[in-house]
Amino acid sequence: MPGILDRINEANDIKKISKEDYAKLAQEIREFLLEKVSQNGGHLASNLGVVELTMALHLFLDFPEDQLVWDVGHQAYVHKILTGRKDQFDTLRQLDGMSGFPKCKESTADAFNTGHSSTSISAALGMARARDLLKKHNKVVAVIGDGALSGGMAFEALNNAARLKTNMIVILNDNNMSISENVGGMATYLGKLRTDVRYTKFKTGVERTLLKMPQVGERIMETMRRSKESIKRFVVPGMLFEDMGITYLGPIDGHNIQGIYTMLERAQYVKGTVIVHVITKKGKGYRFAERYPSHFHGVNSFDVNTGKSKSKKTAPTYTDIFSKKLVELAMKDKRITAITAAMPSGTGLQAFKEKFPRRFTDVGIAEEHAVTYAAGMAKAGMIPVVAIYSTFMQRAYDQVLHDVCLGKFPVVFILDRAGIVGNDGETHQGIFDLSFLGSIPNLTILAPKNAIELEKMLEYAVSFGGPIAIRFPRGTACLEMTDTQEPMVYGKSELLHKGSRVVLLAVGSMVKHAEKVRELLLQDGIDATVVNVRFIKPIDEVMLERLAEDHTLFVTMEENVESGGYGQHVASFICDHALPVKHLNISIKDCFVEHGKVYELYQRLGLDPQSIYEEIQKKLKNEY
Amino acid sequence: MPGILDRINEANDIKKISKEDYAKLAQEIREFLLEKVSQNGGHLASNLGVVELTMALHLFLDFPEDQLVWDVGHQAYVHKILTGRKDQFDTLRQLDGMSGFPKCKESTADAFNTGHSSTSISAALGMARARDLLKKHNKVVAVIGDGALSGGMAFEALNNAARLKTNMIVILNDNNMSISENVGGMATYLGKLRTDVRYTKFKTGVERTLLKMPQVGERIMETMRRSKESIKRFVVPGMLFEDMGITYLGPIDGHNIQGIYTMLERAQYVKGTVIVHVITKKGKGYRFAERYPSHFHGVNSFDVNTGKSKSKKTAPTYTDIFSKKLVELAMKDKRITAITAAMPSGTGLQAFKEKFPRRFTDVGIAEEHAVTYAAGMAKAGMIPVVAIYSTFMQRAYDQVLHDVCLGKFPVVFILDRAGIVGNDGETHQGIFDLSFLGSIPNLTILAPKNAIELEKMLEYAVSFGGPIAIRFPRGTACLEMTDTQEPMVYGKSELLHKGSRVVLLAVGSMVKHAEKVRELLLQDGIDATVVNVRFIKPIDEVMLERLAEDHTLFVTMEENVESGGYGQHVASFICDHALPVKHLNISIKDCFVEHGKVYELYQRLGLDPQSIYEEIQKKLKNEY
Repeated sequence: MPGILDRINEANDIKKISKEDYAKLAQEIREFLLEKVSQNGGHLASNLGVVELTMALHLFLDFPEDQLVWDVGHQAYVHKILTGRKDQFDTLRQLDGMSGFPKCKESTADAFNTGHSSTSISAALGMARARDLLKKHNKVVAVIGDGALSGGMAFEALNNAARLKTNMIVILNDNNMSISENVGGMATYLGKLRTDVRYTKFKTGVERTLLKMPQVGERIMETMRRSKESIKRFVVPGMLFEDMGITYLGPIDGHNIQGIYTMLERAQYVKGTVIVHVITKKGKGYRFAERYPSHFHGVNSFDVNTGKSKSKKTAPTYTDIFSKKLVELAMKDKRITAITAAMPSGTGLQAFKEKFPRRFTDVGIAEEHAVTYAAGMAKAGMIPVVAIYSTFMQRAYDQVLHDVCLGKFPVVFILDRAGIVGNDGETHQGIFDLSFLGSIPNLTILAPKNAIELEKMLEYAVSFGGPIAIRFPRGTACLEMTDTQEPMVYGKSELLHKGSRVVLLAVGSMVKHAEKVRELLLQDGIDATVVNVRFIKPIDEVMLERLAEDHTLFVTMEENVESGGYGQHVASFICDHALPVKHLNISIKDCFVEHGKVYELYQRLGLDPQSIYEEIQKKLKNEY
Repeated sequence: MPGILDRINEANDIKKISKEDYAKLAQEIREFLLEKVSQNGGHLASNLGVVELTMALHLFLDFPEDQLVWDVGHQAYVHKILTGRKDQFDTLRQLDGMSGFPKCKESTADAFNTGHSSTSISAALGMARARDLLKKHNKVVAVIGDGALSGGMAFEALNNAARLKTNMIVILNDNNMSISENVGGMATYLGKLRTDVRYTKFKTGVERTLLKMPQVGERIMETMRRSKESIKRFVVPGMLFEDMGITYLGPIDGHNIQGIYTMLERAQYVKGTVIVHVITKKGKGYRFAERYPSHFHGVNSFDVNTGKSKSKKTAPTYTDIFSKKLVELAMKDKRITAITAAMPSGTGLQAFKEKFPRRFTDVGIAEEHAVTYAAGMAKAGMIPVVAIYSTFMQRAYDQVLHDVCLGKFPVVFILDRAGIVGNDGETHQGIFDLSFLGSIPNLTILAPKNAIELEKMLEYAVSFGGPIAIRFPRGTACLEMTDTQEPMVYGKSELLHKGSRVVLLAVGSMVKHAEKVRELLLQDGIDATVVNVRFIKPIDEVMLERLAEDHTLFVTMEENVESGGYGQHVASFICDHALPVKHLNISIKDCFVEHGKVYELYQRLGLDPQSIYEEIQKKLKNEY
């Protein structure tokens, strides 16, 4: 028997479904999500949580005229299902397939490209303002999670929205979670709103008491009326928002389609910005995801019946190596503290948190604060280790520069997920850090070739005494190349093989590729020198000059954009010092990199050993 | 007769002054500030506003044990006076003289380096946390203005502080102003707190009424007691903060030393973070500054008696040129909107604001939101022009990359104060933008050589159809070199003089220097080619290849750090394409640049024509 979902083939189709079938449709969507995500992996818990909310929004809005902005965006699967992309779920997050995030180029129903947190209110406010200026009348809605609300940008946007008085609806999708447990004052506040019943009871209690006293009661009521503001403070939840000049509606049950729809209709007639507070349950409808929402936030393929992952984890990741080593170092040095921006588990700091709860801080989704907070700690005598994914560190460029490096404070930056991250795609690739960090004075930048070297570098970093960053890739740690381990010396690269003619200067993850390229070149009779760069900043000028004496081609290899990367620094050094060598820059050209498997993207970008080998061949042919 | 101020010669000396003399000391400090700033220029209004607040803080704190963090920091002059730096005011903001901002290296009483907005609570929280972990007992105080509170970072920090429950005092220095008028929901909210009297009266009114009703009144009181939270909401101002879990004290008169001191003593015994809301008057005690606080925010030398500037402004600045041209363009195209982050006057958008109030947005000190808000506007059909100083654009690196450039939205970024800014020093130099913007795909970067070209570029930018940035320096616009004006062509540099042997590739402000260098070289019989780079991204590869045919030395010149700058892109291109030319990179080496006059800093950094000429001579000598 064909399901209700079969009748949803393009945007707005949901409006043709009769009310009685909403529950069944929600059920079918959940089954569809479970089937697809359990096969291909992806974001599950957050999507299960917004099935009814998304349905209500799609009943309320008309696409593509109306604009719906999903904050972060990994919770937009249901939105994709309801806008004619059901059939593309088999290619979800695959190379050239459908993205796991909203993409303007994928559908006119995707109003904005999201990926990083806390941007939706800003973007939606811009759209709403543009609508007013262009004299259009479409609706604009932003959906933001309670976790994302701890990001400063969201506050900046609310602050601005309060002033502009432009009509816009902000759905506060409150599941009481970031990817991990939610933290901070805003979380406390939302907690209070959630248990709003208390206020309501109190209000009713007082009113009833007053009503019992015909004369005095009225007198009090009058006093209250005279101070309208105060009465509002007294009885209305959401005053934090109301105080700023933003209307607050809620909280309401996020799994009641009709309830949400009615509230949206009401919100539509409110002047200015309205926050609609919707309580949802992450993982709703799938018991394993309800129970372990963090685990089912982003998953690989798994067995629906047991909830167990199909891919057996065997080898440790770089995150695991970092996690363990940091705890070990922190046992010896009490000054070491650890800071995460809402990702204790993703960054591997969970172990540190459990061992040293007082020396651990989760600041919420707040990378900027995280970095400056670390600067304050370092100034006051601690050694803070700030672990933030490469792509999210982009948020704190100014803080790294202005608050940490200007003062030369000993903060250790751990940039996990540096380089190609794979399925999350263009908003999450960690391919800019060598460039933006490279421009900052007083900062030292390291990248390890393998697991052991990450340990050595971490040891080096915590005793370094100045600002220092270590970047390493997502996924399994390289356990090879353990025979050569020169000690860490400031600004010195590590020579792994001394050959002739060609030098392979490889950054971090690319050292492994360099070893393979060396093997390929050996077959052509070329005995290439292999250098593990180690220090991306400062570059090892002495070694470069020495190698220029008996080599003719320098090949730099890095998982970073070309502009401002290691390769450009080397090329620039070669050029300015007129070293008698050619240079081949293996890096990512001037583009964003879409989703796909890491090895597929390597190939497409020419970062795999075979492609690099072929480029070297070409270059050598031109040379002679 | 020696004044009270003569007895203040190092930190903590104020504690030796008797209470009766406080008012006189405050008066002397104001006279001192007026004298010094009217002579040398500097920040005046904000410092006049915090005389009593600073005195109270210095009575309360012990330096250097206690930590006092000034947000932004231009209001720390009184702090400098009270910590033994009185005699250095003659060198204020001069080369090798005293900085206009707090500097850890200048005094142990300066707890943190500030300059950019909204960092103080983060840094102070880090210090407070470190103190707890190190089992010390010093006090930690952050002083933040109401304007800076609109910055998202400050909210992130408060959010985190609420959770950490670390003892710390945040002084909210509320003068109801950013540099310009304050905006946004937070300002509205603080406005309510300021008129707090209303709440107090209401509370008293209700209580009196209740007391008149022995039985029923008690019943209500009981109901109220049962719901303590609600009563707090009912009567306590500052609930926005209290709701988050932060204690709020105030508001109090910021010009009453004893009052502030008493409040600080009280705050000290509160657990966790306390906000002390202090109302100050910007410009207090100098009638011209009280009346025109924006004008007296940062000033050049002026006549104390008339308040009039001594330096007569004659020539227009680049800001003026931009300001006028944008209004002209906006008359023709209704899609053009303008966005500032709390600097309508500094960025030259005041004229736009007056002409097109609805198309203008001041988002408050919120660069991140400003950029993403612009992205939303651009996505919805407008052409937003975002004018932010180069140094503050650092705050929005991720937003430019992730929200604007990934989607290729037509946002025009205006980076005023790019390059050396002079007296504000290392926190304000605009010397990183070519690097951090240069790493971003889909972004075009321009720099004009003179006033006319800025106009042309702005015209080009608003009709460009994609993300584009124009960077230009602080100060007087160059009105020379008006005879050559090639039309703007995408990615094409402008050839100003065709010579031989040496090519001077100059970015923006450096074109004028290149012309002078050309004259100097002519005396040596070298007829250098001069190129106005125009497009820093993408670089004009075709022209570089053509010029390599009949030149031997490429000299790149830019007011930006070397790493990731234009010169490295050119060097890298020369190297990777094996062009048969040498390269000389004239840029700022890997360092922060302190305060001083622009021409002095040019000399020190080797960016003045004479230094460049000498470097070229050296390079040419080595060459042959």
